[in-house]
Amino acid sequence: MTIQPFISLPQGVRDILPEESKKIRKVESGILQVFEKYGFKKVITPLLEYVEVLSLGMGENLKDRVLKYIDPSTGRVVAIRPDITPQIARVVATRMRDYPLPLRLCYNENVLRHQGDGKNREVLQIGAEYISAAPSPEADAEMIIMAIEALKRIGLKDFKIDIGDVGFLRAVLGRLPVNVEDRALIKDAIAIKDTSSLESILKRTGKGIRKDDRELLLNLATFYGEEEVIKKASSLTRDPAAKRSLSNLTQVIKAVTKKRLMDSVTIDLGEVRGFDYYTGIIFEGFASGVGKPILSGGRYDNLLEKYGYGCAATGFAFDVENTVSAMERKI
Amino acid sequence: MTIQPFISLPQGVRDILPEESKKIRKVESGILQVFEKYGFKKVITPLLEYVEVLSLGMGENLKDRVLKYIDPSTGRVVAIRPDITPQIARVVATRMRDYPLPLRLCYNENVLRHQGDGKNREVLQIGAEYISAAPSPEADAEMIIMAIEALKRIGLKDFKIDIGDVGFLRAVLGRLPVNVEDRALIKDAIAIKDTSSLESILKRTGKGIRKDDRELLLNLATFYGEEEVIKKASSLTRDPAAKRSLSNLTQVIKAVTKKRLMDSVTIDLGEVRGFDYYTGIIFEGFASGVGKPILSGGRYDNLLEKYGYGCAATGFAFDVENTVSAMERKI
Repeated sequence: MTIQPFISLPQGVRDILPEESKKIRKVESGILQVFEKYGFKKVITPLLEYVEVLSLGMGENLKDRVLKYIDPSTGRVVAIRPDITPQIARVVATRMRDYPLPLRLCYNENVLRHQGDGKNREVLQIGAEYISAAPSPEADAEMIIMAIEALKRIGLKDFKIDIGDVGFLRAVLGRLPVNVEDRALIKDAIAIKDTSSLESILKRTGKGIRKDDRELLLNLATFYGEEEVIKKASSLTRDPAAKRSLSNLTQVIKAVTKKRLMDSVTIDLGEVRGFDYYTGIIFEGFASGVGKPILSGGRYDNLLEKYGYGCAATGFAFDVENTVSAMERKI
Repeated sequence: MTIQPFISLPQGVRDILPEESKKIRKVESGILQVFEKYGFKKVITPLLEYVEVLSLGMGENLKDRVLKYIDPSTGRVVAIRPDITPQIARVVATRMRDYPLPLRLCYNENVLRHQGDGKNREVLQIGAEYISAAPSPEADAEMIIMAIEALKRIGLKDFKIDIGDVGFLRAVLGRLPVNVEDRALIKDAIAIKDTSSLESILKRTGKGIRKDDRELLLNLATFYGEEEVIKKASSLTRDPAAKRSLSNLTQVIKAVTKKRLMDSVTIDLGEVRGFDYYTGIIFEGFASGVGKPILSGGRYDNLLEKYGYGCAATGFAFDVENTVSAMERKI
């Protein structure tokens, strides 16, 4: 008899036994059917990428979360993919320029992310990307409507899609006459909805800040709810880029309303998630009883040009395991 | 404008565009439907494993083909899985002992293997494992019949399943009165069907080798074809273990014949693939026009006990991309 090593798994990965696997398969196939109905075609991207190639398209928050090794044959640093979206951007920019736009692509893959403390997490994802010549509220609306339809298809009842717009926030923050550091402090205070910190930063820095901008910033946390928050925000800004964002958002909400899906939607104009990565509408899905998002995404019009193909794009991905957890908790 | 790194992929991985991805999905779902019909339940295993845990259950040929890194938080060596079967063995031995035997499990995952020259290959696999208290010809037959049925279901016409039996060969080689090195040389000559080398090794080493054993070995390459090769082999050996293997194989062939599937089968008693890993029947699927196997598997009764649960097992996996290539070439 040989002495056996302690049989355990690296932290952050796990086995999925038949009962759970069956639920995952059901959720995946329901979602993929909806994606297919909307004309999304599946691509399969590789497990490995060169870090320098992947880095072109990774948000800062992901760069530290990549498992890497040095490829002995080339000396280049190789990553296990932490995200599929930059891979899709690379594939489209390098191999799919002959395809007519808009391109509707989807995927169903595993990614690996450092979680801190030396832990990784393997995440099963199903996502969709809509790549077009120019951004449009129709594309933004299609993604949100499709996400809701997919959740309804798999039978999830108690969920909300939170919609924000970092394009709006970027316009508002961009016009403030403050330095880069203070702008970051302001953004961070907004991120955690800390209005008293925000007020003191504005008091300290903001001699030249216009009264309506100040009022808008201090009210951001209240721009949470239904359609009327867009009007409230609009009444407080005259910045043309901010106005354009709000007008785009209004059209998206109109499209969602037309599909009678507004019950599933909340607007949150104070949300700054992915501020440096996204360029317009962002959204996340939450289900009752599950602390983590079941899906997240948004518009990222700057990504494809980093791979040399200047297209607009919006997309989102389900975290399959969180979605299955949500299904478990449905009444 | 930033200077872009040369956008390329690490060797051995690739993008799969929508046209091919659609074919893959069709092949995968056809195969999984057949697996499901036979009662196989899907499990999902992790991308990463500790090397020492995985090594318990890896054949020697795989050990050098594993991509590894050192986990900074534990100092343990972590592998990207090169094979799913040892993972299934670990899962069953550590987490599924309460499940009644036989256990029918299947999977649909990506693995990563070094190919030499610093290249890797990402392989998309769909496989099935049948785990039982004891080996049986019924289990062996079920796997072969299910493999054939899956290939027919996805519409592949021109294919063959080559069936061998390393249990038979091990019995024959085991009784030779030669040393370990010479036994390895004999096995290697059989592997490449080099009868003249085999003859000279036997001449050199084989003073004590019985005449019937010698004749059997020199005729191994001719034990290729239909059912009658089992009788030919049987007439040349009196070794009880070899006889038992041939009797098991006869029953498997009977079951395949009963299903009228013998047209899809060839017997090859000279096949030694996976000699150190498999314990009984081995089989591989080949399609016209595709040089590489589209599926391979066999009985591996020694694997689960290495994880502390002494079960018998047989299984096989499709190489999904090779299978899709075979579909492309069908008439």
